[in-house]
Amino acid sequence: MAERITPRSENYSDWYVDIVLNAQLADYSPVKGTMVIRPRGYAIWERMQSALDTMFKETGHQNAYFPLLIPESFLKKEAEHVEGFAPECAVVTHGGGEELEEPLVIRPTSETIIWSMYRKWIQSYRDLPLLINQWANVMRWEKRTRLFLRTTEFLWQEGHTAHASAEEAREETLRMLDVYRCFAEEHMALPVLTGIKSEAEKFAGAVDTYAIEAMMQDKKALQAGTSHFLGQNFARAFDVTFQTADGALDHVWATSWGVSTRLIGALIMAHSDDRGLVLPPKLAPTEVAIVPIFKNQNRTEVLGYADRLHQTLKGSYRVVLDADENNSPGWKFSQWELFGVPIRIECGPRDMQNNQVVLVRRDTGEKLPVAAGAAPQRIAELLQQIQQALYDRAHAFRQANTRDIDNYDDLVAFFEGDGGFARVAWSGSPEAEARIKDDTKATIRVLPFGNQEQAAGKRCIVTGEPARHVAILARSY
Amino acid sequence: MAERITPRSENYSDWYVDIVLNAQLADYSPVKGTMVIRPRGYAIWERMQSALDTMFKETGHQNAYFPLLIPESFLKKEAEHVEGFAPECAVVTHGGGEELEEPLVIRPTSETIIWSMYRKWIQSYRDLPLLINQWANVMRWEKRTRLFLRTTEFLWQEGHTAHASAEEAREETLRMLDVYRCFAEEHMALPVLTGIKSEAEKFAGAVDTYAIEAMMQDKKALQAGTSHFLGQNFARAFDVTFQTADGALDHVWATSWGVSTRLIGALIMAHSDDRGLVLPPKLAPTEVAIVPIFKNQNRTEVLGYADRLHQTLKGSYRVVLDADENNSPGWKFSQWELFGVPIRIECGPRDMQNNQVVLVRRDTGEKLPVAAGAAPQRIAELLQQIQQALYDRAHAFRQANTRDIDNYDDLVAFFEGDGGFARVAWSGSPEAEARIKDDTKATIRVLPFGNQEQAAGKRCIVTGEPARHVAILARSY
Repeated sequence: MAERITPRSENYSDWYVDIVLNAQLADYSPVKGTMVIRPRGYAIWERMQSALDTMFKETGHQNAYFPLLIPESFLKKEAEHVEGFAPECAVVTHGGGEELEEPLVIRPTSETIIWSMYRKWIQSYRDLPLLINQWANVMRWEKRTRLFLRTTEFLWQEGHTAHASAEEAREETLRMLDVYRCFAEEHMALPVLTGIKSEAEKFAGAVDTYAIEAMMQDKKALQAGTSHFLGQNFARAFDVTFQTADGALDHVWATSWGVSTRLIGALIMAHSDDRGLVLPPKLAPTEVAIVPIFKNQNRTEVLGYADRLHQTLKGSYRVVLDADENNSPGWKFSQWELFGVPIRIECGPRDMQNNQVVLVRRDTGEKLPVAAGAAPQRIAELLQQIQQALYDRAHAFRQANTRDIDNYDDLVAFFEGDGGFARVAWSGSPEAEARIKDDTKATIRVLPFGNQEQAAGKRCIVTGEPARHVAILARSY
Repeated sequence: MAERITPRSENYSDWYVDIVLNAQLADYSPVKGTMVIRPRGYAIWERMQSALDTMFKETGHQNAYFPLLIPESFLKKEAEHVEGFAPECAVVTHGGGEELEEPLVIRPTSETIIWSMYRKWIQSYRDLPLLINQWANVMRWEKRTRLFLRTTEFLWQEGHTAHASAEEAREETLRMLDVYRCFAEEHMALPVLTGIKSEAEKFAGAVDTYAIEAMMQDKKALQAGTSHFLGQNFARAFDVTFQTADGALDHVWATSWGVSTRLIGALIMAHSDDRGLVLPPKLAPTEVAIVPIFKNQNRTEVLGYADRLHQTLKGSYRVVLDADENNSPGWKFSQWELFGVPIRIECGPRDMQNNQVVLVRRDTGEKLPVAAGAAPQRIAELLQQIQQALYDRAHAFRQANTRDIDNYDDLVAFFEGDGGFARVAWSGSPEAEARIKDDTKATIRVLPFGNQEQAAGKRCIVTGEPARHVAILARSY
């Protein structure tokens, strides 16, 4: 199977698409810019959803569902919001054979329709906080699309919360950012930088946007999740007020936050290799694939041996027994590597004689013979080790490709060369930010927490003025 | 709270809407014909999804996701399909600020987009069966809408399977019908009739449509789920062929099957009463609500007693402690009844002294004092009893309102009077079917399994010709 995947070193972009298609994660659809998420890809999304949904509920959120179609006029109520999203909208003009009185847009995000409902539901401080999340499809018309990373339609979750004070809403914004960080690190084995976005990069309609940013294997950054403090912008646009505990009237404070099926793209780009997909065990739909190795004369015995192992493991692991007789063991090894299964178990006649099996790590290729009776325990340990090893490898890679740079020529040279993450001092000037982008194609991915303190005494890499921020620059997806 | 709900006897339709709105299951949205599913409603849907998804996976299905938007030309490839669905479509004509070359419709159902993909994925009998399910939103432009029962957008699951033979596809169609029957009966406590639809009532594009039909408290029928044998209709329309085991080429055989958020409407209409929602325990987001009864002088002790009970139950049940001090116990009793929580636990100072609590059944209002130590066990039994009692009550109601009728005047009188399910002999003639509908507003809900044998020797209720079927007639949602 391996020859179907373009090596990363040859063409990173082709490598990515080859993995998505050959590992059957997704396929191009006949509708321009959209994709089909195939069962092997959707199963990863289901594991992501399940972990995130648990975390959302543990932090007090409830799920709800709001309409797909939003009146065009709603989008226009928040000035920055419409400017950001109107150009990306798909518009429904006809329904039931008739032209609609007002065109409806397919939600690019749901702030407007949700805040139009919050107006009905919120009267008093007793109705707050209102902590709602929605799992849904959204649509943003994109010119240049890429499987999982940028498609006109994608699946996501969007949290929309309402609070009685700015402090509480800010706390919520950071709490959910931390939920995302935790999910990325612990489930996706993906180290992320966290912090705030510059004005130029923030969400259309937000006061402040926070993000988690990860480094991919081509050293580009990928924004993996965002959490927005919306201030009172949407409450003002939709006239959502509440009676405070001391009897006054105030506009409600808001947050919103989301992650999408883009995370599957991040997962692929962070961990996979030239043989195919590499999945962190926690998100792998199949943790273990058993491949029996047999010939005609020992077929029954070896299959029986593999089957007993399968029965033993089934209660504790997501395990498949690949007993198909149409393909050779070698072909199956490649296939399960391509699909990213963290552990392959090989068992042949000699293993059976020695009452052992061989565990093979997907991430390193290491082969570990182990007594059959010890396999269940050893698999548990190994899955943990693989989960940790993937994180460590990604972390080391990011460290190795992050540079403190204090000279503009060096910065330009850095991005003309191998690139990566550049940590630089910045005045805060939008012009300086724009110049960096023009000269290097890199943008400010994030201003890490504590960056203002770190900027003390430093000078802006562009203007030489006193720096107000330390920024992480990178080219990005 | 109770006075906010119109009694069933006064106006059934208003009663239904009052329950949906007051129990906070859903709300009207500003977009005509659509609704917002609020957290209390969505939590029921999540429990439905979880149970159904498990059953789908146990029967070998995998989830996937296909695009929301379908080229108009795809819909037209299957003649009956387009005739059935085109008038109900919402049409996207503009995207990203430009008019589209070809209009896209928002999926009313996904056969066409899915079979366009199956063409790419299926080459040989080895690729079959292909057993895929999708959880998604769909849109059908409806003139007259009703919360949960009929909205332009709704949430559902749609299974789409591909098989190498007609027999296998027919087996799958009936297997999934039985999954639906089992879910309705065991989880929803909803007895259903199963069988095949008449030609006039079948799905646009199906060879045969099977359905589960339930009786609501106003004696009308509600179609709660359908399973279609599609023959080779979509394979022909999308040119999906496969190489058979003996080397020939054949078109693939198909099924599709779906249930939707309409089930929540069925659940409400089947079990609820004039005090509010009544939920079968298996689908109740909250199984038990503890309401402590205290005055200032014993506040701490009673709350402590209730809290210990809460801690004891928390690991085994979905339980809430309502310790809010702004509302009276009586107000809370009504509130939890309105929300449909199957068991309320009352505990006051006297209960504390006697080391007991009082369990109150939502379905019957029965009060059951029980020793505190025995509560966990008693709750488990009671939840099972309530689940069974709701089923039994609905079943008895359907039995009491189903009549064998063999005279056309009696049939007309039946539907002019109280109505219900009428079991009649039918020739199979579409004209007879149409006449019944004209005269009674009742339609053939289902031709139960074995109906042809039962028809032997009987005569059609309309024409007097020899009967070929026994049909269940009812007015319906």
